[in-house]
Amino acid sequence: MNLTARIETLSELAKRLEGVQNVTILTHARPDGDCMGAGFGLCYFLRSRGVRANILNADGFPARFSFLHEGYEPQEFDEECVISVDVASTQLLGEGLSQYADKVDICIDHHFSNKLFAKHNYVDGSASAACLLVYEVIKLMGGEIDPLIASCLYTGIATDTGCFMYENTTPAAHRAAAELIERGARSTEINRLMFQVKSRGRLFAEQELVSSMLFGKENRVSLITITSKIMQRYGIELSELDCFAGIPLSVEGVEIGITAKQQPDDPENFRVSIRTVSVDASAIAAEFGGGGHIRAAGCSIRGTAGEVAQKVISCAERYL
Amino acid sequence: MNLTARIETLSELAKRLEGVQNVTILTHARPDGDCMGAGFGLCYFLRSRGVRANILNADGFPARFSFLHEGYEPQEFDEECVISVDVASTQLLGEGLSQYADKVDICIDHHFSNKLFAKHNYVDGSASAACLLVYEVIKLMGGEIDPLIASCLYTGIATDTGCFMYENTTPAAHRAAAELIERGARSTEINRLMFQVKSRGRLFAEQELVSSMLFGKENRVSLITITSKIMQRYGIELSELDCFAGIPLSVEGVEIGITAKQQPDDPENFRVSIRTVSVDASAIAAEFGGGGHIRAAGCSIRGTAGEVAQKVISCAERYL
Repeated sequence: MNLTARIETLSELAKRLEGVQNVTILTHARPDGDCMGAGFGLCYFLRSRGVRANILNADGFPARFSFLHEGYEPQEFDEECVISVDVASTQLLGEGLSQYADKVDICIDHHFSNKLFAKHNYVDGSASAACLLVYEVIKLMGGEIDPLIASCLYTGIATDTGCFMYENTTPAAHRAAAELIERGARSTEINRLMFQVKSRGRLFAEQELVSSMLFGKENRVSLITITSKIMQRYGIELSELDCFAGIPLSVEGVEIGITAKQQPDDPENFRVSIRTVSVDASAIAAEFGGGGHIRAAGCSIRGTAGEVAQKVISCAERYL
Repeated sequence: MNLTARIETLSELAKRLEGVQNVTILTHARPDGDCMGAGFGLCYFLRSRGVRANILNADGFPARFSFLHEGYEPQEFDEECVISVDVASTQLLGEGLSQYADKVDICIDHHFSNKLFAKHNYVDGSASAACLLVYEVIKLMGGEIDPLIASCLYTGIATDTGCFMYENTTPAAHRAAAELIERGARSTEINRLMFQVKSRGRLFAEQELVSSMLFGKENRVSLITITSKIMQRYGIELSELDCFAGIPLSVEGVEIGITAKQQPDDPENFRVSIRTVSVDASAIAAEFGGGGHIRAAGCSIRGTAGEVAQKVISCAERYL
């Protein structure tokens, strides 16, 4: 972290974006709706103003977000400016983009943990999504939001808030969604793709995870174990994993929901995610050398699936 | 239907509400988040202005919505005005409130199919929720929205739009949600209760329904059958049924999702719900004497579970 770095204001960001030329936009590895939406939204906006701009991702652009990048073609130019969106630290760029680690001119992000690694950093940890920051700066610049840009920005706001369900859903997120729908965002189609449709593999994997769910202390703790065998049997992609982590806490009466994920390269190593309603999740994770937030934290635990489940459930029970 | 009835404007509704005294508010049987939210929201608002007001429901107030009616006590008065909210026709009041069928003074509703049964009808079929209409009239009256009223109105807007996911989610719904959160609506807690938490019974019933799901024509049609046995085995309540109807269409690639529900009093009779992505659902339902909307329709089909599934799947396949 650059200790002398300061966080810029939205109008400073707007002023910088007014002057850019030949821009490369970087997004984080294992791309999600917010970095894709913010990256493509910003790219299309800059192009609409005559700026040449491309977007890069170390893992490519997922088919799941094809509605954002259908028709996108990279442009030829000599790069003059590098902007990262939704990237909290340069490690998150992934190996394929590591050559950019010390070359980022402008960072636009909404993670409190942002390392302020760019020359100029615009970071608002209270924003629901990076897309909300891109939306705000486009508005401040008096830019036009066409239907495609609206769909990009809507996607990130909707996915990062769990379709306006999570605690990070601010009034500003709702107001931006209202305007983006008016500007032509294909919100119904996006919501269906992002939140309603599940692959058959995911559906049947969920069924197996539920049927083997373990419970502790008066059913107030629950745990699912995602083994490599389940991942393979149902052809589950890494990007679908996040959806499973919500299952244990979705059971009525459960206060601590735990997901243990077997590591493919090391079957006696489990990444454990802990989500809670009122208990401090980071305290439980800390007992195993992990950490995180008060309602969502993580750690690694070694052992067989059964041993890991037993260890973390008994620990969690002490917090009730 | 009263052929001479006309639909009033929002300002006419506001003017009427300015003058009411000793009000009984009616909501529809098998209450949902929108009628409960609109009913209690209006009731608390009227009481805050010194009007005596009660709310009635033929089936009582579900525990699921206790955050809306904790602390609510009926008041004593001689009824002078009857207002219905979210009630499209007097039959929907249920038997327990049938004595009010020809006594409704003011109807506030958002169903296109509203029968205009009251003396004065304010109906806006384009509104996402009845709660949105109550919100708009309170605003027009310059009323104060306290945190409890905000939670009531947020509940109906969120539940009727599937947490801002369905096609009926308007910019106005998002903007109202933004203000209601600012006014103290407990949106995070409400979202968790309404959308994230499932009873263990529901979770395990879903698992069984998924494992016995039937597919037709290249997996583009899917069907689940909810038998009375499943309802009993997992202790499923009628109010939880709506959640199951979304399962068939949630499978990737499925264009027609069908749910057949065995009728408890007549095991060879199934209520069939048809949901579609692009096909006309009402046309399929019409082949069995039913009807509905273009993306959601219903009918009744007689036979064993297997016969009913076979009949409706083959019919649906002809529409692909």
